Formats: sequence, structure tokens, C-alpha cells
Amino acid sequence: MMLVVAGPASPMLSERISELLEADLVNVEWKLFPDGESYIRLPRDLKGERVIVVQSNPPPQDKRLMELFLMLNLVRDLGASEVFAVVPYLAYMRQDKRFRSGEPVSIGVVAKLLECVGVDAVVLVDAHSKAVLEHFDVDVIEVSAMPLIGDFLAKMKLSNPFVLAPDFKAYSMIKVVAQRLGAPCDYLMKVRDKVTGEVETIFKEVDVKGREVIIVDDIISTGGTIANATKISLDLGAKCVYASCTHALMVGNAFNKLKRAGVREVIGTDTIENKFSKVSVAPAIAHALKRAL
Amino acid sequence: MMLVVAGPASPMLSERISELLEADLVNVEWKLFPDGESYIRLPRDLKGERVIVVQSNPPPQDKRLMELFLMLNLVRDLGASEVFAVVPYLAYMRQDKRFRSGEPVSIGVVAKLLECVGVDAVVLVDAHSKAVLEHFDVDVIEVSAMPLIGDFLAKMKLSNPFVLAPDFKAYSMIKVVAQRLGAPCDYLMKVRDKVTGEVETIFKEVDVKGREVIIVDDIISTGGTIANATKISLDLGAKCVYASCTHALMVGNAFNKLKRAGVREVIGTDTIENKFSKVSVAPAIAHALKRAL
Repeated sequence: MMLVVAGPASPMLSERISELLEADLVNVEWKLFPDGESYIRLPRDLKGERVIVVQSNPPPQDKRLMELFLMLNLVRDLGASEVFAVVPYLAYMRQDKRFRSGEPVSIGVVAKLLECVGVDAVVLVDAHSKAVLEHFDVDVIEVSAMPLIGDFLAKMKLSNPFVLAPDFKAYSMIKVVAQRLGAPCDYLMKVRDKVTGEVETIFKEVDVKGREVIIVDDIISTGGTIANATKISLDLGAKCVYASCTHALMVGNAFNKLKRAGVREVIGTDTIENKFSKVSVAPAIAHALKRAL
Repeated sequence: MMLVVAGPASPMLSERISELLEADLVNVEWKLFPDGESYIRLPRDLKGERVIVVQSNPPPQDKRLMELFLMLNLVRDLGASEVFAVVPYLAYMRQDKRFRSGEPVSIGVVAKLLECVGVDAVVLVDAHSKAVLEHFDVDVIEVSAMPLIGDFLAKMKLSNPFVLAPDFKAYSMIKVVAQRLGAPCDYLMKVRDKVTGEVETIFKEVDVKGREVIIVDDIISTGGTIANATKISLDLGAKCVYASCTHALMVGNAFNKLKRAGVREVIGTDTIENKFSKVSVAPAIAHALKRAL
């Protein structure tokens, strides 16, 4: 028997994965105590079952992580024979190394805590770097949303699309989007201040004149990077700009910032379930799980 | 060398503990990233040092816990030879057993995670139950704020005090408060609905007529229990009512609820640093650490 356990942060994605795997779906009972602690309950015998727990970590990240730890430990307690943690967006991925002395490698701590509650394998979507994966001792399966984003964009029938990475790091990841679209692809340059975390996008000529530009990144957080890339694209004569990413965190007034910069639409996935979840990563996750199981 | 590391939730208590131990105090650099993730940094060599990390877990509990995990792992990484975690208020203490099938024993998971990041001993203040302590495999030192609360109340020179526990469970803990005050002591009865968590205080005669009643409990969360006990005390002719506790969570409109019920003053400790922190638990913690070190 195989079972998908839907964590409170990922109800829709869990349902889609369970359908594709033809596995039973169980929604965790969930509430907040008046003081803000999370309560979860899963009144079901899991003896001998292979269980897939799906829980993303958008803000409030620490709460979503803690709920994940509670669920993973619980399914093990309830007798699951194998436990897979699907963490579509994993918190603290950007603290993947010691940028300055005295800093923790936060993602390493998260990896250690996940292992400590007892998982057999972890499934991530577009990890922020290869370094993220190296912090896990258990099996980690990384899938990418990029081919699915490419297929989604292809259906939009843009007449003259151009795929743009906001920095070189994103470039290798997003090339597949351009391939699926049959569009050209280029990247801008970005520098980050190690102390303040402030980002500056450096002007660079890209051939976007008259084109429908789609800026693609792994994460859109405050939207600052994408807003800068949008302004550069429009300055260079782009016809219009779309923004797409795997993890549309879109914190604070990110959406307004992007709209003001001239972004026509934000296209995210269901790794984070919000109004930008237009592409489902369920096919990629289900495919990876089928191979692993 | 001994060092006290002040977590972002416990700056005042950390300072007081370091003074009593005559140990160096280091404040962790702390900020929130724009997306809400916590950033900590401790730019100091800790090679061979015995380190006491102090971090309480008031709301947002999950964030305070995660910061604690990050700090503990970090001080170990930085070379500390021994790591003590002082967690004045530990989150999820009230989920100390499986009340209904399919529930996690959340405090057991928290204990496991604490051990996993590498602590040699944990110091708690007024754990919610003996069961809490049993979930730890590492050494746990529990200290009580009650003698200190008693001494504080004694200095208030109440003319005719009476110490009241809102339920039988609190009774054995708060007797020492009455002893320090030289006052009589009794308890009310409370029943809790296992499904809803709703609490009802059952009327019971207590000899509070004309007395200054101090209702004492381990935790004041929403204030419902104390408000009920206050009403009963006033109905029985109490002259006035004070509320005191170790952990003044005081969530939402708890303070207004208590004032409306007739509570004259709320006296909490610095296990949770807020406007109710009138008693410091630093002497009890420092004393326990001196014995353990």
C-alpha cells in the first residue's frame, strides 16, 4: 500500500500527486492552538505502509518545518515501513554555505533535523544550489519544474518569445524552458553584497528588442531582482515582460513591485500554493517517486 | 572558560545569568530575512569553551525553536567543548502525551530535535509535567520559579494573603509559594474536554473571604482558567485577586480578559520577556548551572 499524506501547506499538490500515483490521499487534521502552536493528527493505522508526506515550507517557514517534523515522526510512530518527505519548497535553502565567519549553514541543520525524525528519502523541487543536496546523508531526489514551466509557456502561443535569466546561476537551469518554447535564451549579471544581502543587477546587452520576454528564476522572493531585470528588458525595447519561477514566495508587496516595473503576469507553480500557482509540479514529483518506489 | 550566548528571545535573562555566573556574555547577531527566515551569526571562536545558550520559546514558538536549533548546532561547529541549552519556556510542553489516537507526542519530537543538534544538557523552568522530562535522553535539569515568586510576593506586604491553585495539578507546585508567604493555600478543580481543549473550572468552596488571593499557575496562556478562578474567588468574598505564573504567555487579549474578571495585577517571570516579567528566574538557573558545571 502507498499513501500520500497531505500536510497543511500542500493540500492541492498532495491531491494531484496522489491521483498520478493512484495512491490513497489522507489529509492531516490540523489546527492552531490559541497560543500559536500547531496541532496535527492522523488517526490511521499505517503499519507496513509506504508513506509520502507532502509539506512545503513557505512563510511562516519555521512553522511549516516544525509541522513537517511532527508529521514525519508521527507516520513513523504509526508504523509506516518507508517514509518519503516531499518538500516542494524547502526553507533555508539560500543559507547553503558559510558566507561569513560565525554563520550557521542553516540548510545543513534543516537536513540534519529532517533525517533525525526518520525519513528514507527526501524529494525537492529546484533546490537553490547543488550545495543544498550535499548536506543530506539520506537519499535526495531533486526534480525540476522548468520543463513543465516551458510547456505551460508554449501553450500561451507567444509570437516572439525570449527567455531571460536574471543572473548566470539561473541560466543553466532555465535553458530547458527556452528549448521547450523554441525560443532564444540569455542572462543578465547580478552581484550580491555579502553583508547586507542587497542585490544589484548589472546592465548587459541582451537581444530582446520587440520580443515577449519571459524572465525565469528559481525563486521570486521580494521581487527586487526580477523588477530590475524587467526594467532592463523594457529599456532594451522588449515588447512586454512575463515573470516565471518555481517558487513564487512573493513576500510583502512583491506583486505590486513587479507590476509597477512592468511585469504583465507572474507564473509560479504549486510548490507554493497561492494565486500564482499556475503550473503543477505534480507530474515531475510523481514520475520521480514512481522510479524510486 | 564559560560563556553565555544570548538568543534573540532571551536578552535580559541571559545577561542576568551571565552576571550571576561571572561568565562572558555574547549576544547573537540576529535579523529576519525579507521572506521571514531567521539569520543568526556568532563571530567568535568557541574552541574548548563551555557554552550556555539561552533561548526561550514564546510565540512565534516554531521560529524560536528553529533559532535555538541553529544556535546550538553553530556553537558546536565553532568548537564548544560542552553545550548547555537553557530553554526557560519550552514550546509544545503541553503535548506531552497522546491524548487521542493519531496525535504526535510533540514534546517528544522537540526533545529529539534538541538532542540531534548536539546538547549535553537542557535546563527547563517549571516543565508542564514530569512526562516532559521523560522524553529527553540527555540530562535535563528542571528548576522552579515558585520560590522566587513567593519571595517577590512576600515583599509586597499583603496583609492577609491566600494562595490558590486553579487546579489540583498546580497545587503541589505552588505550595512553596504559600510557604514563603506564610499564607494558607488551596486549589480549585478543573476539567478539560479532550477533543476541543475547552476548560471548565468547577466551583469548590475555598476559604478566601476577605483575603488577598494570589492565583498561581505554571502557564497563563489565553487567561481563561485564571479568569474563571478569579470570578469564583470574588464570588466567595475575596478582597482582591492577583494572578501569578512562571510563563506569562498572555496570548491575544488575555490581559483584558483578566482585568475584566477582576485581576488587579499579573506577575510573571523573565522566562518570557514581556511587560509581566516582574520576577527573574536567573538565580534559580545560575544555581542549577553552578551545580552541574
